Amino acid sequence: MPRPKPISGFPEFLPAQRMVEQLCLDTLREVFELHGFSGIETRAVEDMTTLTRKGEITKEVYVVRRLHATEDAHDDLGLHFDLTVPLARYVLENSGRLVFPFRRYQMQKVWRGERPQEGRYREFLQVDIDIVGENTLAEHHDVEAALVMLEALERLHERLGLPVVRMHVNNRRLSEGFYRGLGIENTLDVLQRVDKFDKIGPDAVGELLTSELGLSDRVADKCVALAQICTEDTSFVERVRGLGVRSEMLDEGLASLSRVLSAARRRVPGRMVADLKIARGLDYYTGTVYETELVGYESMGSISSGGRYDSLASDGKRSYPGVGISLGLTRLLGPILGRGEITASRVSPSCVVVAVDDEDSRDQADEVAARLRARGLCCEVAPSADKYGKQIRYADRRSIPFVWFGGINGQVKDIRSGEQVEAVADKWLPPAADLRPVVVSTMTR
Amino acid sequence: MPRPKPISGFPEFLPAQRMVEQLCLDTLREVFELHGFSGIETRAVEDMTTLTRKGEITKEVYVVRRLHATEDAHDDLGLHFDLTVPLARYVLENSGRLVFPFRRYQMQKVWRGERPQEGRYREFLQVDIDIVGENTLAEHHDVEAALVMLEALERLHERLGLPVVRMHVNNRRLSEGFYRGLGIENTLDVLQRVDKFDKIGPDAVGELLTSELGLSDRVADKCVALAQICTEDTSFVERVRGLGVRSEMLDEGLASLSRVLSAARRRVPGRMVADLKIARGLDYYTGTVYETELVGYESMGSISSGGRYDSLASDGKRSYPGVGISLGLTRLLGPILGRGEITASRVSPSCVVVAVDDEDSRDQADEVAARLRARGLCCEVAPSADKYGKQIRYADRRSIPFVWFGGINGQVKDIRSGEQVEAVADKWLPPAADLRPVVVSTMTR
Repeated sequence: MPRPKPISGFPEFLPAQRMVEQLCLDTLREVFELHGFSGIETRAVEDMTTLTRKGEITKEVYVVRRLHATEDAHDDLGLHFDLTVPLARYVLENSGRLVFPFRRYQMQKVWRGERPQEGRYREFLQVDIDIVGENTLAEHHDVEAALVMLEALERLHERLGLPVVRMHVNNRRLSEGFYRGLGIENTLDVLQRVDKFDKIGPDAVGELLTSELGLSDRVADKCVALAQICTEDTSFVERVRGLGVRSEMLDEGLASLSRVLSAARRRVPGRMVADLKIARGLDYYTGTVYETELVGYESMGSISSGGRYDSLASDGKRSYPGVGISLGLTRLLGPILGRGEITASRVSPSCVVVAVDDEDSRDQADEVAARLRARGLCCEVAPSADKYGKQIRYADRRSIPFVWFGGINGQVKDIRSGEQVEAVADKWLPPAADLRPVVVSTMTR
Repeated sequence: MPRPKPISGFPEFLPAQRMVEQLCLDTLREVFELHGFSGIETRAVEDMTTLTRKGEITKEVYVVRRLHATEDAHDDLGLHFDLTVPLARYVLENSGRLVFPFRRYQMQKVWRGERPQEGRYREFLQVDIDIVGENTLAEHHDVEAALVMLEALERLHERLGLPVVRMHVNNRRLSEGFYRGLGIENTLDVLQRVDKFDKIGPDAVGELLTSELGLSDRVADKCVALAQICTEDTSFVERVRGLGVRSEMLDEGLASLSRVLSAARRRVPGRMVADLKIARGLDYYTGTVYETELVGYESMGSISSGGRYDSLASDGKRSYPGVGISLGLTRLLGPILGRGEITASRVSPSCVVVAVDDEDSRDQADEVAARLRARGLCCEVAPSADKYGKQIRYADRRSIPFVWFGGINGQVKDIRSGEQVEAVADKWLPPAADLRPVVVSTMTR
């Protein structure tokens, strides 16, 4: 069999890289559970009718069929392209068995059949939190979702050396109310153009608004001026007022965004800004919207986005409003791990290799290893009774710091310093820093 | 949208069930890492040529295609149906970047397009450990793989109340050597019939051997007699000798199985038997083979199987022998969780609900929650400032045991006993048993 080649868009990690990813997942889960979120997993496939309900995304779906498919209704399946559509379906399917507001996190691969390009993947790991209410969901959950994700990202900064983040927040009712106050009816058309602000700049957005939507220069200028407002405190309210546009919906949006920003500033100062160009163009958000950048790595784009849906799902009798944020973990880690900016200190979880004198005494080495493991030390027994030098090299190639010689009352060598000391397998402990592989980061912090 | 229905063969768990599954995964990972196994994940898809190399399995593959596929070589993809084929490909693809023997665990969903039936799934979680050598791999790893999986299963027994297991072990060279000693050439044909022993019984196997393979009654009887040998110690050697068949390969198989069984008996007494009917019919094992049953639940079939491949993969220059065992976690947990024999003590990770007096003081409740979380307590703030009775009901419906009232110097109520005491948010701790959701099992142990 010739050496297989990677498949473009389907990234895979080496063991040390996966260790970093796993530590990220553990950290995220820890924070989400501290906030009372329950973990769920949904099946990888959904009915195509569920997946294609949002018109725009159908081109990206992977269809799944049995190789020898016969007439079979269930062959009409596709891989999920996000975790929101499955959540909506899961909530409807299980509404009688869930307690609302339902707080869930979900960390799973998703698939999109788009053409792979820089920073885009066809298979990637997504991490979502959502809070879903039954008929109503209080606004304070918009603050909560943002703060939980910010706390999780702060923990990744502290533990993994990822850069700090800045979350950019807007409110759909603010933008829509502003556009309506200007007499614009099809506000989604405007949002979709404003969504390109970061890519094409203010002048080009203004040009699109006049040429494609036929807005007057005055109205287009106001829309562009709104999009340019970005403040760390609630002074955005004054600046919007200064543009001289009025509507009830705008007032609601301004008040709501002020409350979200104020609450966030009290709890995580400096991590959130009101940024009125945030549009989340094609998604069906109805209130607060979030995007999140890595400070110093803004060119990576938004690593974590989301917002409020007034109707995540509905079964006719009840509606299920939700607010959630999604973290694109592969999109975040892929380039960083690829460039080696973050890596694990060793490629094996083992802290110790127990040397073997000869195959007849392997049992003794196994017993030493069992006693070390009984106290939580990850270790392995050397695969062959080679000369000690070769067994030390075995450890060294995996960056495993210690090698154990002899029986339960033996000696342990720190192969980095060469220091070798007497040790008892029921008592010896390595320095705390060597217990587990740690993450090494060279990123700007 | 009407209430969606489950898709047959694609099981999903409710949050409390997922909590049990997650605890299983954490336990397994802990044991594997204690033994120095590195975790990896491979992409969900493989090239169809990789997946269809083993002829027999092609009918079960799910093909994956972009909905709007054009001419695109990479559309020729299928979902992996196990974790062994992806491992072989991963090892070849990364052989220059891995250190051998490569010890890896992998816990991922796999997909098989077969018709769903009792206990069979189309999507299920599989947990594999393998040790892969470069050109050679010592026999002691056959013992090691079995012992690591047995230790992991023992841990599941202790922590989750799953029944104890019994691992049935054979060696392909023993069976094959025995058949060759009888003058049989196409030994795989015999193995495939013997593989049906548990389903159809000794007489029917004997009948198949004579009618389908044309073996004489005497030879078929010997094959059936071999399959009926099952011992807890190495007395199987005597019993095989008593059948009067001789071959060099048989001697090797007997010696190898004796060593595996003796080593296992020293380390985990009573959990492994030599069972000479174990054949693993269609798989390409070349040495030790394993199957594992839950004691008292033998009708569930083998929950964990595997064996030694002399050539897991080969690139022409080097071969990669491996030994591994796979645990079918969904197949194990699905029926048990479905019957409610094991469940979690609460549906939320939260240990405390912090009550809210009125929306204006939500910030105070958030501060209490933040201080509890700073000491690792999972908690959530009540979603609305209802009457206390309703907030207590909110906790009760999730089986969250404690409700906090007032500020940092407040009171905490155990809603099960009704007892309410003064408490300080920076100091209070619940009883250790309430800290995390625990698993409740009613299974025979």
